[in-house]
Amino acid sequence: MSSMILWGLDMPLEPAEITPTFPSEGEVYVRLRAAALNKRDYWITKGKYPGLSFPLVPGSDGAGVVDGREVIINPGLDWGSDPDYFSPDFRILGMPDHGTFSDSVKVPAINLYDKPSHLSWVEAAALPVCGVTAYRAMFTRGKAKAGETMLITGIGGGVASMALLFGLAIGMDVWVTSSLDHKIDMAVQQGASGGANYTRTTWDQELANKLNGKFDLIIDGAGGPDFARILPMMSPRGRMVMYGGTRGNISELSPQRIFWKQLDILGTTMGSPDDFSNMIDFVNTHKIKPIVSHVFPLEEVNKALAVIAEGEQYGKVCLDIPA
Amino acid sequence: MSSMILWGLDMPLEPAEITPTFPSEGEVYVRLRAAALNKRDYWITKGKYPGLSFPLVPGSDGAGVVDGREVIINPGLDWGSDPDYFSPDFRILGMPDHGTFSDSVKVPAINLYDKPSHLSWVEAAALPVCGVTAYRAMFTRGKAKAGETMLITGIGGGVASMALLFGLAIGMDVWVTSSLDHKIDMAVQQGASGGANYTRTTWDQELANKLNGKFDLIIDGAGGPDFARILPMMSPRGRMVMYGGTRGNISELSPQRIFWKQLDILGTTMGSPDDFSNMIDFVNTHKIKPIVSHVFPLEEVNKALAVIAEGEQYGKVCLDIPA
Repeated sequence: MSSMILWGLDMPLEPAEITPTFPSEGEVYVRLRAAALNKRDYWITKGKYPGLSFPLVPGSDGAGVVDGREVIINPGLDWGSDPDYFSPDFRILGMPDHGTFSDSVKVPAINLYDKPSHLSWVEAAALPVCGVTAYRAMFTRGKAKAGETMLITGIGGGVASMALLFGLAIGMDVWVTSSLDHKIDMAVQQGASGGANYTRTTWDQELANKLNGKFDLIIDGAGGPDFARILPMMSPRGRMVMYGGTRGNISELSPQRIFWKQLDILGTTMGSPDDFSNMIDFVNTHKIKPIVSHVFPLEEVNKALAVIAEGEQYGKVCLDIPA
Repeated sequence: MSSMILWGLDMPLEPAEITPTFPSEGEVYVRLRAAALNKRDYWITKGKYPGLSFPLVPGSDGAGVVDGREVIINPGLDWGSDPDYFSPDFRILGMPDHGTFSDSVKVPAINLYDKPSHLSWVEAAALPVCGVTAYRAMFTRGKAKAGETMLITGIGGGVASMALLFGLAIGMDVWVTSSLDHKIDMAVQQGASGGANYTRTTWDQELANKLNGKFDLIIDGAGGPDFARILPMMSPRGRMVMYGGTRGNISELSPQRIFWKQLDILGTTMGSPDDFSNMIDFVNTHKIKPIVSHVFPLEEVNKALAVIAEGEQYGKVCLDIPA
C-alpha cells in the first residue's frame, strides 16, 4: 500500500510502500479517495505531540470505499461509552495509528459512516475532524439556537469555517474575526453579518459598534491576548466555547465579567460517536458543503503542509487520491 | 423606625430615626430581630458601587417577624421570571432600597420564607445572601453530587463557609484554601479533608500531593494570580464555578487545559427565587446551621464593618436587633 511517510522531525513526508498488517476483529481497510489536513498534522511534523515514534503516516481526515460502500471515517478512535468525555484509550487517527495520507487505511468498522451523497470525495474528506469539532462546540456544548448571535474567531480555519456554515444553516446571525481583511470579506460573501480584524487595536470597539446587541455564543480556537476583550460583548448567560488556543495563554480576564453576567466558558475537543453521527445527519439535512480551500494530489502533501503552516487557507486543504 | 444610616462615603454609620413610607401593594414591613453583613456592605461605604445616593440604610441579610410569623428575607428583589438570569429590575436589598441595618425593613411579601425552626435569629440572618449564592453555585450551576471532590477557595468567607457545610451535608470530599493556617484548621475540624495556604509558593503542589485524585468541582470567589494553577488539579469535565473576584484579574490561563479536559468555567451571582426556596428546603432537610463568627448589637455595626474590612471572620458577622 502506497503511503506518504514521516521518517523524523522537520523532514518532508516521503512516498513509500507499506506492507499492510492483518486487520483485527472489527477492523477493515478503506481504499481512500481523498484526505484532508489539519493543523495537527503540521504540529506532528514539528514534534509538538508527546509519544511520537517514527516512521508514521499522518492524516486524520479521509473518505473512500469499502467493499463498494462509499464511506467517511470518524477519526476519533476508542472514545468509549461516556458521551461527556473520552476514555483513556481515545486517540485520533493518524499517529500513533497510521493515518489517511495513503491510498488505504485500517480503521474499526464502527468508525465508518455513509458518505453524504451531495459531497464530492474531497468535500467528504474535508468534513470529519472539523465537522465533529464544530458540531460538538456549537450544539452539544454551546447549545446554539436559531436567531442567536454568534461570533467565530479566526475565520478561515477549518473548524471556524464549518461553524460559519452550521450557524447560517440554522438561521443564526454570525460574525467573524480574522487577522486578514480578505478572509472577513469572504465570510461576509458566504452570509456572515460582518467582522473585525483583530490586528487593529480597536477591533473590539469597531465590532461592538457594528453589532446590534450582544453575542450569545462565541466559538473560539485562539485564546491569547484578545480573549478577555470579547467578554464585554457577550450577553448575560452567554456561552464561550473553546476548542483551541493558537494564540496562547489568556490574560487580564476579569472575574466580575464572568460572574455578574453568569457566563459559561466551556472547553471542547473533537466529539463522541453520537456527536459524529449527529453531525453527519445535520450535514445531510442542511446539504452542508465544507469549504475547500486547496486541493493537491496525495504525493504533493508537503505543499499542502506548507499552506497549513502559513495559514493561507480559507477552509480545508485537501488531498486527492487516485482510484 | 430606628436605623443605622450612611450619610456619605468613608463615614461611620449613624443611628437615626426614619419615617416609614407607606407600603405599596404586595409590600410588608418586617420587624427585624437580626441582620448580617456582607462584603457588599463594606464596599458600599467605600463608594464601590455605581448609583449610590445618600442617605441610605445598608444591609441585605435579615430575619424577623411579620404579624406573628417568623420569617427570613430573600434579598434578591425583582429577579423576574427567567431562572437563568435576573431581569433589568433586579437589585439586592440594602441600596438603593433601605436595608436590614434597622429595626424594620419594607420588602415584597413574596420575598419572605418561614424561618427554619432549628435556627436562632442570628443564624437565620446569616443565611440569605451566602446561602442562596452558595446553593446556586454548587447545585444549580455546579451540579454538585455526593461522592465528588470539591475545592473551596478562601475558606472563612461567608459563601465559602456555607459551601463547606452544604458539601459535607451531601457527602462530598471537601478541600479548602486560605491565606491563614488557622482557617484551614477550623475547616478541617468541621469535616474538610485538608487544605493549603495559598500564600505559600508551592501551595498547588502541596495540595495535589495530599489529594487522592482530582477536583470535580471548584467554588471560587477569588480569581487572581492563583486561579490558573487550580486547572491542572481538575478532573476531566470538571466544573469551576466563580461567584467573586476578590483577588483581581486572572492571568496565564492555558486554553489547552480548558479545551483538552473539556472544563466548564461558570459564572454565578446570587440566585433566583427557585434557588432561594430550594436552599431553604435544603437547610431544613439537612439541619444546616450557618457558621456565625461575630455578633454585635445593631448600634455597633461600625465594629462589625471593621471585622469585614480586615477579613478576620470565619463565617458570618451578624447584628443582634432587640425585640
